[in-house]
Amino acid sequence: MRLSELAPDVQASVRATRERVARLHAELPANGLVVWTAGNVSERVPGADLFVIKPSGVRYSELSPDNMTVCTLEGEKIDDGTPSSLSPSSDTAAAAYVFRHMPEVGGVVHTHSTYATAFAALHRPIPCVLTMMGDEFGGEVPVGPFAIIGDDSIGRGIVETLRSSRSPAVLMANHGPFTVGKNAEAAVKAAVMVEEVARTVATAQLLGDPVPVAQDHIDALYQRYQNVYGQH
Amino acid sequence: MRLSELAPDVQASVRATRERVARLHAELPANGLVVWTAGNVSERVPGADLFVIKPSGVRYSELSPDNMTVCTLEGEKIDDGTPSSLSPSSDTAAAAYVFRHMPEVGGVVHTHSTYATAFAALHRPIPCVLTMMGDEFGGEVPVGPFAIIGDDSIGRGIVETLRSSRSPAVLMANHGPFTVGKNAEAAVKAAVMVEEVARTVATAQLLGDPVPVAQDHIDALYQRYQNVYGQH
Amino acid sequence: MRLSELAPDVQASVRATRERVARLHAELPANGLVVWTAGNVSERVPGADLFVIKPSGVRYSELSPDNMTVCTLEGEKIDDGTPSSLSPSSDTAAAAYVFRHMPEVGGVVHTHSTYATAFAALHRPIPCVLTMMGDEFGGEVPVGPFAIIGDDSIGRGIVETLRSSRSPAVLMANHGPFTVGKNAEAAVKAAVMVEEVARTVATAQLLGDPVPVAQDHIDALYQRYQNVYGQH
Amino acid sequence: MRLSELAPDVQASVRATRERVARLHAELPANGLVVWTAGNVSERVPGADLFVIKPSGVRYSELSPDNMTVCTLEGEKIDDGTPSSLSPSSDTAAAAYVFRHMPEVGGVVHTHSTYATAFAALHRPIPCVLTMMGDEFGGEVPVGPFAIIGDDSIGRGIVETLRSSRSPAVLMANHGPFTVGKNAEAAVKAAVMVEEVARTVATAQLLGDPVPVAQDHIDALYQRYQNVYGQH
Repeated sequence: MRLSELAPDVQASVRATRERVARLHAELPANGLVVWTAGNVSERVPGADLFVIKPSGVRYSELSPDNMTVCTLEGEKIDDGTPSSLSPSSDTAAAAYVFRHMPEVGGVVHTHSTYATAFAALHRPIPCVLTMMGDEFGGEVPVGPFAIIGDDSIGRGIVETLRSSRSPAVLMANHGPFTVGKNAEAAVKAAVMVEEVARTVATAQLLGDPVPVAQDHIDALYQRYQNVYGQH
Repeated sequence: MRLSELAPDVQASVRATRERVARLHAELPANGLVVWTAGNVSERVPGADLFVIKPSGVRYSELSPDNMTVCTLEGEKIDDGTPSSLSPSSDTAAAAYVFRHMPEVGGVVHTHSTYATAFAALHRPIPCVLTMMGDEFGGEVPVGPFAIIGDDSIGRGIVETLRSSRSPAVLMANHGPFTVGKNAEAAVKAAVMVEEVARTVATAQLLGDPVPVAQDHIDALYQRYQNVYGQH
Repeated sequence: MRLSELAPDVQASVRATRERVARLHAELPANGLVVWTAGNVSERVPGADLFVIKPSGVRYSELSPDNMTVCTLEGEKIDDGTPSSLSPSSDTAAAAYVFRHMPEVGGVVHTHSTYATAFAALHRPIPCVLTMMGDEFGGEVPVGPFAIIGDDSIGRGIVETLRSSRSPAVLMANHGPFTVGKNAEAAVKAAVMVEEVARTVATAQLLGDPVPVAQDHIDALYQRYQNVYGQH
Repeated sequence: MRLSELAPDVQASVRATRERVARLHAELPANGLVVWTAGNVSERVPGADLFVIKPSGVRYSELSPDNMTVCTLEGEKIDDGTPSSLSPSSDTAAAAYVFRHMPEVGGVVHTHSTYATAFAALHRPIPCVLTMMGDEFGGEVPVGPFAIIGDDSIGRGIVETLRSSRSPAVLMANHGPFTVGKNAEAAVKAAVMVEEVARTVATAQLLGDPVPVAQDHIDALYQRYQNVYGQH
């Protein structure tokens, strides 16, 4: 598939998505979620069976709309104007699986942020001990299975875990957090929030036994928060 | 109530307050107290039964005097020139309750800063083991009750806890710190200091048993500090 | 004493010291050692019985050579051209005591940096488990007595503790670190290094039992390091 | 040996190396790996038996291609145009030993980054509990022997430890991490990654018992990662 041969409105939609995704990558280092090249943002192209994702091995300071790679929902890079030497992120297959199986998801983010990844190394969910977690995650942040790159097992693990939870974040075992949202910005926000609550809950667990929030309070917080625009 | 119909001196006072509050919000991310939109500053308008607070869901980099919302002491947004789609922070009812019941308070700040919130998740006060805590807090930083958004219970919890303490900061259970001051800048300073002492005391508690400061020393530190302008 | 009536070369020396001290204050927030106004740098004026110190209650971003206060070795502010409302730091008496009693000391720094202050809250020295500590501190970083502002007890505690140690840093109990050096820059470096080693050693102590460096190795490291200019 | 008398292509190669090494030093403070002057980068000069290393005692903000020192593989500074008062880093002998004994290594980095150094103070390797560690380190990050400056013992300890491991990083006991790579940039990346995994694994170990990654999975991750360019 060649980008320059697609319908003009699809080309415009790809362009806008590349601009958003390039810009949102800056949030990852700005929020302390990544070092070097270890994290990426992807977003479904509105109106097309395509998504945009970070190129592999390129540092954040060098990202621009022009080097964002464009892939089919099967995870294959199209002829998008970038050099053939520029591969899409090694997490492309996982993101593609999510976009294929969760039509409500418009954005996916993966990081190895420190505290969330520490819970992942323990195969331990982040318990809901903060009202902010009720708001954002509707309960605990769950752990997904151990899986390594090479087939669909990472993508499948993400989708199966998220489907049995209200959380937009999953901690893949020994690996790190993947987050989803209606678009890339929402997935970035979830990546920021999962690290924030992981850091706070880890600190509380080191100091003692944090007090759980009762289920009916979690439900009330989650319902209110999901039904209002904006907060705080 | 329409801002443009208020007396000119009140309009000028609102304007000056909006400028201060917009500017002080920059201190929250600069001091590492917040991520995304998760914290806010509010300040009573001198000479009027109004206060200014952050709009809901707007990121810190987009705040300006013009999008600060203006509310009555009942927590109702007035016709302040901002679009009707822009709601005041979801913490507005809590701030309004504080301004109504604590006339000496001119500023309120709420964050979910990591270490202070970890103590809040444990329902554990921060014990006074630092001379800096004697200076700033006059003793331990107390814990307030568990309360969720929807009625006056957060505001009431803040006020009742602060009234039985010398501390300008309260750790609302499972939620996070609220701080007060004679104006917004003083409340921001208290928000910065409560996270600083929470981080230091948490580290000390993880390593061992920090030594309490004796009550007479706390009293001496607090009296001296509150009666001089400036320090260090 | 009036600055403008002192000999021209003394006035020039005061000016140069004010510039150095104002500039070095920027290192405190840049190195994460302080929040708000909670730390200060002071330096003896070469060729005069005077020293320069931060004014009280002024934020780091507002410091300039012109608002640095000039004091006698008794800790009295001279008529230095700043407004009479601008007081020298509340740590002035402690710094003055050090300058009077340790003629080899040209600079003093005080902070409440997190990890060093956590050790201070425990009344626990930082043990020498790093080669870097052998280099910089010649052994453990010692704890000084509990003392509060109001007389010479802080200054005396600093001096007595430093005299029985090779360390340029002392952790004043429940308070925080004070560091000294041949000039203000050396004292700032010691303040940076004491927090660095406190953070590393605290992390090691939380994880297990760090292995001490043998005394003869400490001695060899310290001798080499103190006799060469520059390192790393 | 005088730089200005070397063949023009060697002089050009030295110049390019100095520019790379000066620029890469900025990554050390930017990634939070160093304070003050406590870390350095060195790189072999392509086409010559020389390497470039940071000058001793110079702060990161003052580094430029012109003050990078040029040394023989014996660790002797050549007449490189810098003042004779400017000595190469005190870690020069260690880097020289590595360059002499590991011809495949083109870059060496040394830091005292907090978490990696905490493991070093415990004489404890960082266990492979993260898929990222399988990728980057091919297993645990090993500990090297205790050694102090003065002979070849640091360099020998680095080389012997790295030779019995797939890891490009070694934690020298009570001292800190040394990392290697095909060039200086790769060694800087390894220095960034070793601190990242040390921080994550330390946090997991404080909270509980992180789950090891099985050896066959480590092997699969390492093989894949080392055979593709770029990642994430």
